[in-house]
Amino acid sequence: MKLSLNQATVKRLTLAEAADGCVRHEIPAIGLWRDRVQEVGIEAAARIIRESGLEVTSLCRGGFLTAGTAGERAAALADNRQAVLEAAGIGTDVLVLVVGGLPAGSRDLLGARAAVADGVAALAPFAAEHGVKLAIEPLHPMFCADRAVVSTLGQALDIAEEFPAEQVGVVVDTYHVWWDPQLEESIARAGRGNRIHSYQECDWILPLPADVLLGRGHVGDGHIDFTRMRQLVTDAGWRGYAEVEIFNQEIWDADGDRTIATVRARHEAVSAASGL
Amino acid sequence: MKLSLNQATVKRLTLAEAADGCVRHEIPAIGLWRDRVQEVGIEAAARIIRESGLEVTSLCRGGFLTAGTAGERAAALADNRQAVLEAAGIGTDVLVLVVGGLPAGSRDLLGARAAVADGVAALAPFAAEHGVKLAIEPLHPMFCADRAVVSTLGQALDIAEEFPAEQVGVVVDTYHVWWDPQLEESIARAGRGNRIHSYQECDWILPLPADVLLGRGHVGDGHIDFTRMRQLVTDAGWRGYAEVEIFNQEIWDADGDRTIATVRARHEAVSAASGL
Repeated sequence: MKLSLNQATVKRLTLAEAADGCVRHEIPAIGLWRDRVQEVGIEAAARIIRESGLEVTSLCRGGFLTAGTAGERAAALADNRQAVLEAAGIGTDVLVLVVGGLPAGSRDLLGARAAVADGVAALAPFAAEHGVKLAIEPLHPMFCADRAVVSTLGQALDIAEEFPAEQVGVVVDTYHVWWDPQLEESIARAGRGNRIHSYQECDWILPLPADVLLGRGHVGDGHIDFTRMRQLVTDAGWRGYAEVEIFNQEIWDADGDRTIATVRARHEAVSAASGL
Repeated sequence: MKLSLNQATVKRLTLAEAADGCVRHEIPAIGLWRDRVQEVGIEAAARIIRESGLEVTSLCRGGFLTAGTAGERAAALADNRQAVLEAAGIGTDVLVLVVGGLPAGSRDLLGARAAVADGVAALAPFAAEHGVKLAIEPLHPMFCADRAVVSTLGQALDIAEEFPAEQVGVVVDTYHVWWDPQLEESIARAGRGNRIHSYQECDWILPLPADVLLGRGHVGDGHIDFTRMRQLVTDAGWRGYAEVEIFNQEIWDADGDRTIATVRARHEAVSAASGL
């Protein structure tokens, strides 16, 4: 399995610095974030990527479709359409969606989930026109209230399967799904439908930090069996990259070059151990 | 729905103090913890309960069946058998099981789940002989690595349904299951099989604290729709108590009597709002 570096893993690096790091460490692909693309503009970002020779495995991220008011939902859709244009402009066909949590003050989980389905329906044709696939990312259930009311792959597939696979699929992120008792069947189902649009790796480490968003570890530092994870997505037909995306303040504060070296070394260790 | 106070909510109170608090606040039932029962001994605990007139809705807790070595697993089973005797001795027929996380250093999630099924199989007949039902508690997936490899009601039911319902069922704890996209069907399934052995309430509040075990809130302080929760278990045939179990350092540090008053007030607010 080939390696892609999601640039959130080296959050302090600019797009040009992250791309340069990938090239120097012989990592053939990168996952981009909108803030770092917008910082230089789409055209300059596309030029940096073209000159680096890197493949772009995804753009993070659209979504946040659960806002409470019609005005906020319209603004979210407009922002998502902009994200689609950015994805197309920088040369990736995968836009990752973090769907959003409960609206402020609301306990209406079913309503928020319905808003996600509505938002995806509103975006999918526009994305398809621009050659971009929406990749719904189920987040770990501990983010259900505040970040994503889509918590499992099965649930993400229920939404995605209302659309053609070339319009809507899912992200399989080991951190978010490793615990799922239905993981095997959900990954197989995603594979059968050609709906795995991104495979991301990072590890579940303990203790969780005060801000649980930042509790992710380098591959190999935690409790996830990456041999099993790669076997499941490979068996499901995934022939794309393992994109390593780690949110962790300590890793963000570390030297970016050393982080990239660690990402590559850990990737190769899993490859050697798993044969995948 | 009648109210039961799980004594972990007033962690600093002894069994006698907690029972007295229930009586003074006209709460008709209590869920007990083994440490507070053992502190006075089974006979004295049973006498305190008998004299208080309280019903005992559960004993917390057995489980931790996933240990890595045969010796540790044997010790865990012995401790669970002792817990069964304590449950019978204090007059409850429900022993709550927190099944345990990954063994130290292990990433074998499937192996740990198999160990849970084996442990339940070893315990269920013994428990049944003593008139005690095992209630498997799925914990929130954020506890999968370190406390419970059973993360959903569906998964708990898959284990429980290998046994008669009067031997093995499940706990429905709002905190652990509220996010589950399959909640409705899993609660209905549990009800059809007469496998809801305990219904517990506490709220999901944010931010999560440094120790996420202690991040639970009073009913009404967070993001859970308790009207929906009570409706689901009622529709599934539950006619038992709502047992309020809150792990929260701030609440533990508060005056126990005030906490019990708050628990009762919040319970009545949900009852008034939901008609349940």
